[in-house]
Amino acid sequence: MIKIGIIGVGTVGESVANILENNSDIIEARAGKKIVVKHGVVNNINKKRNVNISISNSADDILDDSEIDIVVELMGGVEEPYKIVKKALSNGKSVVTANKALLAYHRYELQELAGHIPFSYEASTAGGIPIIGALRNGLSANHIESIMGIMNGTTNYMLTKMINEGALYDDILKESQELGYAEADPTFDVGGFDASHKLLILASIAYGIDAKPEDILIEGIENISDIDVDFAKEFGYEIKLLGIAKKIGNGVELRVHPTMIPQSSMIAKVDGVMNAVSVVGDCVGETMYYGAGAGGDATASAVISDIIDIVRGNNAPMLGYNKPLESGLELLSSDEIISKYYLRLEVSDESGVLASISSALGELNISIETMLQKTSSTPNRANLLLSTHLSKEKDINNAISKLSKLSSVYGDIAMIRIEA
Amino acid sequence: MIKIGIIGVGTVGESVANILENNSDIIEARAGKKIVVKHGVVNNINKKRNVNISISNSADDILDDSEIDIVVELMGGVEEPYKIVKKALSNGKSVVTANKALLAYHRYELQELAGHIPFSYEASTAGGIPIIGALRNGLSANHIESIMGIMNGTTNYMLTKMINEGALYDDILKESQELGYAEADPTFDVGGFDASHKLLILASIAYGIDAKPEDILIEGIENISDIDVDFAKEFGYEIKLLGIAKKIGNGVELRVHPTMIPQSSMIAKVDGVMNAVSVVGDCVGETMYYGAGAGGDATASAVISDIIDIVRGNNAPMLGYNKPLESGLELLSSDEIISKYYLRLEVSDESGVLASISSALGELNISIETMLQKTSSTPNRANLLLSTHLSKEKDINNAISKLSKLSSVYGDIAMIRIEA
Repeated sequence: MIKIGIIGVGTVGESVANILENNSDIIEARAGKKIVVKHGVVNNINKKRNVNISISNSADDILDDSEIDIVVELMGGVEEPYKIVKKALSNGKSVVTANKALLAYHRYELQELAGHIPFSYEASTAGGIPIIGALRNGLSANHIESIMGIMNGTTNYMLTKMINEGALYDDILKESQELGYAEADPTFDVGGFDASHKLLILASIAYGIDAKPEDILIEGIENISDIDVDFAKEFGYEIKLLGIAKKIGNGVELRVHPTMIPQSSMIAKVDGVMNAVSVVGDCVGETMYYGAGAGGDATASAVISDIIDIVRGNNAPMLGYNKPLESGLELLSSDEIISKYYLRLEVSDESGVLASISSALGELNISIETMLQKTSSTPNRANLLLSTHLSKEKDINNAISKLSKLSSVYGDIAMIRIEA
Repeated sequence: MIKIGIIGVGTVGESVANILENNSDIIEARAGKKIVVKHGVVNNINKKRNVNISISNSADDILDDSEIDIVVELMGGVEEPYKIVKKALSNGKSVVTANKALLAYHRYELQELAGHIPFSYEASTAGGIPIIGALRNGLSANHIESIMGIMNGTTNYMLTKMINEGALYDDILKESQELGYAEADPTFDVGGFDASHKLLILASIAYGIDAKPEDILIEGIENISDIDVDFAKEFGYEIKLLGIAKKIGNGVELRVHPTMIPQSSMIAKVDGVMNAVSVVGDCVGETMYYGAGAGGDATASAVISDIIDIVRGNNAPMLGYNKPLESGLELLSSDEIISKYYLRLEVSDESGVLASISSALGELNISIETMLQKTSSTPNRANLLLSTHLSKEKDINNAISKLSKLSSVYGDIAMIRIEA
């Protein structure tokens, strides 16, 4: 029999305890041993919980219990769980965590501390989808060329409603909050930060790139307008908030931003709160993994698969490698990103404006692929929508800054990257 | 250093040897050890091969070599590889195979023989997609409710062309043969047999059901007509050749057949030669796995991931469990299948025929959901297309047999199952 302790018994922790009990037949058959929750630790011991386990409010009740083999960390946050997990490892206990923020900041220190002690985190990224397993094991023969994923269900739900039903950003944000899909302060989701944590975890397994959220390009969906949505539909794109990791020569691009992608691509077909991650490997080509990215039971499914894996005797290294993966891979500066771009400008509706803008772009190394003029709600103005051929992020930013200063251009210029 | 031997150095074997060499940097970092091919065994030693390894035509050159730790079986067939793999195990060597037919017939004997010796077969099902890993590890906390998969790329390519471009079966079969997607004798693919082998493997991991291909319902795509395609499109369905495993009470349905599925489902969106498997678990909900189901490099990606897993020290049991998974699960007879059905009948184009057919169906416990009449190419006849509410396979077969005998019904009645 294997005894585990759960630190943080919220929605996911309750699901873990309940599934271990309800599915004990199949879990014991697969793990080869019975797995029981010996103890749970919470902040507030007075709150009623839907679980049948002993509870206290001191993590040491688990960390110092020599009968407990596996510590399941589900408390959230960064520095507090970091301390707890370090102590668990130094006490020789295996660790399972669903904590993406902890890993976004401390995964390399933890890999070193863990050494040969199993440390697993399938639930940290894309909920119940076994994407960590796919990258750590299933695709281990491959140099990874790219990872592109819908890693946040809230924003995918909102974008789906905006694209399919013409909902406006503010309305759908309010609806998502009422449905419980979005927090009262939605910044962590809609600003792309949640997705960035997950992207960093996947990029570590794929490339061994050590970066923190503040090192990479992160943009949210807050500024997407109904005009952008109309343009996307007209030109055969969906708009998705993607986490993207891409190997370019000896560099790796890491970025999170709204992206226009062709409707024909598999990832464009993923609607609502679902998550999906597309991984391209040099041998396997494109593979994609789809499922629920959140929810107590789906996340617990991943947590328990890690526990079973450890009970079976898994001893793959935490990030999937013992020595550097590919020598010389470096995080590319966001200036170096190469992409197609969509731009939206509000301009004076007078002759010569289009010509002056396209010639200005030409001088700045930006070549236009499509251009479209739409009426504006303001009299004597027009919305100019255009997409570019492959360009450098640095050149686009320069162009946006220059164009903004033209007297014929009003307000901010909106930009969305396009993946072809 | 780990030395392996490859028995059967065809397209996949060549890819395995070449990727182990070309991607040796990343493979060594992930496995923790260098992996080299010590020897390959082939039938015809005179044929030129694109690999840089020693070759002979006796399997014993690998099986009796005490330096070789892992035997990679890529020869195909059933009884001959079964003998070889048994000898490898009895010599204490780990086994990696891509051989679905071997496993469709001998997986339970092999699981018993292997015991604690690693035996892996990720490449046997859906090529490069890590679906075995997902079921064996990633979803191990779940009772599996259903598995539905496009497990054969040839037929999916053909059906995609028939649906999207209106191609006719005979034409597209010929084109597939010219492109090398289909064999000269295409029966194994188009008849559903290839998919059945893969389904049986997945069903063993999910349910522990011991069945052979001849025990389950297998239908191919040979009789799908352009009229069926038109009906599917009109009612919002795609037609896919699916392998389906589904738990119903204490029984498990196992079946391979063309299936009408709603265009909105993820699996309906998988086009061309690609494979995809949707798995529903009781905790995780629906997950889906997508990628290339065939091809030398994609299949080799899966073979090598198994090798790396073994080198890392994997010791999960072959089918993912040591004792029966769920007590009392039994293979359901195909008579017991419950589904919606689409039927196509050629009937006399005269008043009263529709009424007589619908009343006949009613008496046979079949309730009609939609009915559609289309002109026939034969004068004075009409094509009658209908879909039913949930019905029992036994009742449908009975109805087809009774209706066929009516004087107003000509020729065979076509039937396609519908998954709602």
